[in-house]
Amino acid sequence: MGPGPSDVHPRITEALARPTIGHLDPAFVGMMDELKSLIQYAFQTQNRLTLPVSAPGSAGMEACFANLVEAGDKVIVCRNGVFGGRMQANVERCGGEVVAVDDPWGRAVDPAKVKAALEANPDAKILAFVHAETSTGAQSDAEALCKLAQEHNCLTIVDTVTSLGGTPLKIDEWGIDAVYSGSQKCLSCVPGLSPVSFSEKAVEKISNRKSPVQSWFLDMNLVMGYWGQGGKRAYHHTAPVNALYALHESLVMLQDEGLENAWQRHGDNHNALAAGLAVLGLDFVVPKEERLPQLNAVKVPEGIDEAEVRRRLLQDYQLEVGAGLGDLAGKVWRIGLMGYASRRDNILLCLSALGNTLKQMGCDVDPAAATAAACEVLDNK
Amino acid sequence: MGPGPSDVHPRITEALARPTIGHLDPAFVGMMDELKSLIQYAFQTQNRLTLPVSAPGSAGMEACFANLVEAGDKVIVCRNGVFGGRMQANVERCGGEVVAVDDPWGRAVDPAKVKAALEANPDAKILAFVHAETSTGAQSDAEALCKLAQEHNCLTIVDTVTSLGGTPLKIDEWGIDAVYSGSQKCLSCVPGLSPVSFSEKAVEKISNRKSPVQSWFLDMNLVMGYWGQGGKRAYHHTAPVNALYALHESLVMLQDEGLENAWQRHGDNHNALAAGLAVLGLDFVVPKEERLPQLNAVKVPEGIDEAEVRRRLLQDYQLEVGAGLGDLAGKVWRIGLMGYASRRDNILLCLSALGNTLKQMGCDVDPAAATAAACEVLDNK
Repeated sequence: MGPGPSDVHPRITEALARPTIGHLDPAFVGMMDELKSLIQYAFQTQNRLTLPVSAPGSAGMEACFANLVEAGDKVIVCRNGVFGGRMQANVERCGGEVVAVDDPWGRAVDPAKVKAALEANPDAKILAFVHAETSTGAQSDAEALCKLAQEHNCLTIVDTVTSLGGTPLKIDEWGIDAVYSGSQKCLSCVPGLSPVSFSEKAVEKISNRKSPVQSWFLDMNLVMGYWGQGGKRAYHHTAPVNALYALHESLVMLQDEGLENAWQRHGDNHNALAAGLAVLGLDFVVPKEERLPQLNAVKVPEGIDEAEVRRRLLQDYQLEVGAGLGDLAGKVWRIGLMGYASRRDNILLCLSALGNTLKQMGCDVDPAAATAAACEVLDNK
Repeated sequence: MGPGPSDVHPRITEALARPTIGHLDPAFVGMMDELKSLIQYAFQTQNRLTLPVSAPGSAGMEACFANLVEAGDKVIVCRNGVFGGRMQANVERCGGEVVAVDDPWGRAVDPAKVKAALEANPDAKILAFVHAETSTGAQSDAEALCKLAQEHNCLTIVDTVTSLGGTPLKIDEWGIDAVYSGSQKCLSCVPGLSPVSFSEKAVEKISNRKSPVQSWFLDMNLVMGYWGQGGKRAYHHTAPVNALYALHESLVMLQDEGLENAWQRHGDNHNALAAGLAVLGLDFVVPKEERLPQLNAVKVPEGIDEAEVRRRLLQDYQLEVGAGLGDLAGKVWRIGLMGYASRRDNILLCLSALGNTLKQMGCDVDPAAATAAACEVLDNK
């Protein structure tokens, strides 16, 4: 129950362990077509250029920036956590110019600040922001931010690593131009793959670049040849065959559940966990209306050694929760309720384990009351 | 029995499907230390900066070039197949200047030409070549080429994707500065990871770069923080946990067999296959003394539709062999004898299946005599 990788469903590890076939085998190529459709469904997009990058979410991020940013391009980057900062590093390494829009860690991106930045920088070409900040648990209003970008003729690059499958995300309806995610959060697949999708406008910019994409491995002009619709598949790199079996299975499971149902489940389970955490006297970092249901960042109580709590949870309960990163290091725990891990037994385990551990360490808390509060929410949803 | 991915041993898929734990879990961090030692053994190196890149071999290649090549650096690139050409593309995307040394596809790199290029370009900083060309089955004399580079104060970048575990490779003894490989060839692990290793001289160049590495994901200055020796592990990206379990298992198996024994096995099995192919009248692309035992490129007989042969092998025998790439497209088959796939039953299957298919298509061949010739070699080794 950390910030990812989340628990992997047994159906997915079973798929992962199937016999490895060639990455150009006709049976595998058929699966690639299905996989593309499944990712399109998860992203709610018809974008032709939709595929899994053969590497973790950080590489998916780099795929978006390296393909869309050319030297000298001005990019507005929203920074309200670790991953906004990483976006900035990506822009800089592509030779782009960063205009930073800062919000406090633990808050959503403020659309008013973005609007001001867009107005002050009419030559900006791209707006980049994180939909679901894994480092803080804050969710930004991607729809509103994309609308602003469109009004100012900017393309958008959006990090949805933690939102995909856990919280509403509608690429086409919101008009997102480039999006990347990860396999190991709300999809409950193994880590190592990054679904990405590019709009026609983004593809046009990529196709008309003045300079080649600086990464050969991530150059979408080349990757497209392997993931292209039907027809001949050009060899680009050896695909991670088994990991793709697993991603396929995880997306079939998401389709079986239904996206809206998955969003609802993540929301309901978050409400239950939040009710229990409130009974334990633990405060959220993020204001209620900006909270991600799948990533719950709570403040460590005064005087408690946060690392010792995590150590005991792991040792005594085999339960992992995440530490804080960056500005929040040592100050918060991050409790994931992602994908297969977002379920009743985990909520109760977490509340009992955390409650009992805090009690042992001298806090005046009532673990039984916390689990009861969570059950009440779940039973009355 | 294509050019990779090779057959994955059941022990390795079993490891792959183990429960996913956190990438910062103490138990996982312990496994990372073991993994580093195991890769050091496989590469025969003591290099501290030795780790698996979280992406396929093409990303490992890019990791070497993006870290070592700075804009304006002159790099001598040996081109005798597809992957030498890809090296050139990598140098160019890093802003380096390429001096190409060309040899025919199907031949080893000619040390005399490399010597001449080094002498003609005293300002060259790096020599890059492919040890084992997967596209042709040619093996170059890495030891001799590295010696030449050292005599001319050049660092070396060497592609060992197909050689690691299958043919002698001695990083420290030969003085290779940067090396990358793949998980899916002679290690018989699933595709998707790229073991890399950098000498102290290479690390010094990386640490003293004038410009940042253009890839954030592949920047060894950052990756080192996660794979660093002991101590605190800094979060960089979410490691592909399950794939690393599998790589660990494959390297334990290599250590159990012993590197020298693995090399011997690949050599013996190649001799047996070659004896059988000779009986079928199939000629190798590569002269005997330059052949890779694990990748056998043979010429398609006159008048035979090579794609139809591959289609029948796959359909009738569930046997994959590889097609030709680039200059050799349509002219050759590439038969892999890599890792777990390099064994007696596969040799016999391949010779019977290929022999019978060619016979059906009108060739005057004797499949039984071919398998007998292979058995004779194996029984008398």
